[in-house]
Amino acid sequence: MKFLIPLLGKTKTTYLDAGVRDYAIRLQRFANVELPVLKDRYNRRESDAVIKALEAELLLEQSHSASFRVALDPGGQSLQSEELAILLDNWENRGITTICFWIGGHLGLHQSLLKQADMLLSLSRLTFTHEMTRVILLEQLYRACTIKAGHNYHK
Amino acid sequence: MKFLIPLLGKTKTTYLDAGVRDYAIRLQRFANVELPVLKDRYNRRESDAVIKALEAELLLEQSHSASFRVALDPGGQSLQSEELAILLDNWENRGITTICFWIGGHLGLHQSLLKQADMLLSLSRLTFTHEMTRVILLEQLYRACTIKAGHNYHK
Repeated sequence: MKFLIPLLGKTKTTYLDAGVRDYAIRLQRFANVELPVLKDRYNRRESDAVIKALEAELLLEQSHSASFRVALDPGGQSLQSEELAILLDNWENRGITTICFWIGGHLGLHQSLLKQADMLLSLSRLTFTHEMTRVILLEQLYRACTIKAGHNYHK
Repeated sequence: MKFLIPLLGKTKTTYLDAGVRDYAIRLQRFANVELPVLKDRYNRRESDAVIKALEAELLLEQSHSASFRVALDPGGQSLQSEELAILLDNWENRGITTICFWIGGHLGLHQSLLKQADMLLSLSRLTFTHEMTRVILLEQLYRACTIKAGHNYHK
């Protein structure tokens, strides 16, 4: 199983970058993890709407190899960690090998991605910074993998 | 307004400790933040039930100065960040000056604290490590304060 999480820009906050790296390494025990950093193609003076649309293009391009696309959205399905573990099992049983997760930039995800995603997932009703969302998502994938494997981390 | 968040032990993960410090400093613009680190009084070979009860005692002792006690619990109320900002306003209007947040250790919070709390708050249906919960809570309090003050951070 492969988790593909395209990042809209580097993780600039040093300690969150350390968190991303930590969980990416831990996850390698259970799955391949790819975190390609997408380069801004837009001029920072563009309008928010234009930036969101360009970010959506970047994310889409990057995820053509994925067999399942999950958009992180506050309006999505909210799961318990155990339910996420069951979901991973389901994906595996359905022969889904590469799962792509779309995390919006600081403007959020473009509407078009919400429509094209195979699933909308909500990590919380709360809004997190997109950099913190990266750490939380990776930690939850790791937690779900340990639950699935019957390991001890998740207590 | 004062946020009192007693910590059951130091934040051992270096990058999460950096996150706790970062948001504690940022929050000082809006509120007093106290993060007393509570010392384990128990022998690590005690049963989980005994440890949870002793942790509950430590948290309770530490929060006698608080006029409102919030227990973080997955079964609690889940809010949007904007709703948390409104809640802070409500507390202020009701003359509540010190709000204590109870975060369980890795075993979770003792049942007795859930009963004694003035409110149960859920950050997510997902389970986070208690160290990550510290960062997420502080970030959300900061976010809520910026929303309340009409600042720009929360976009």
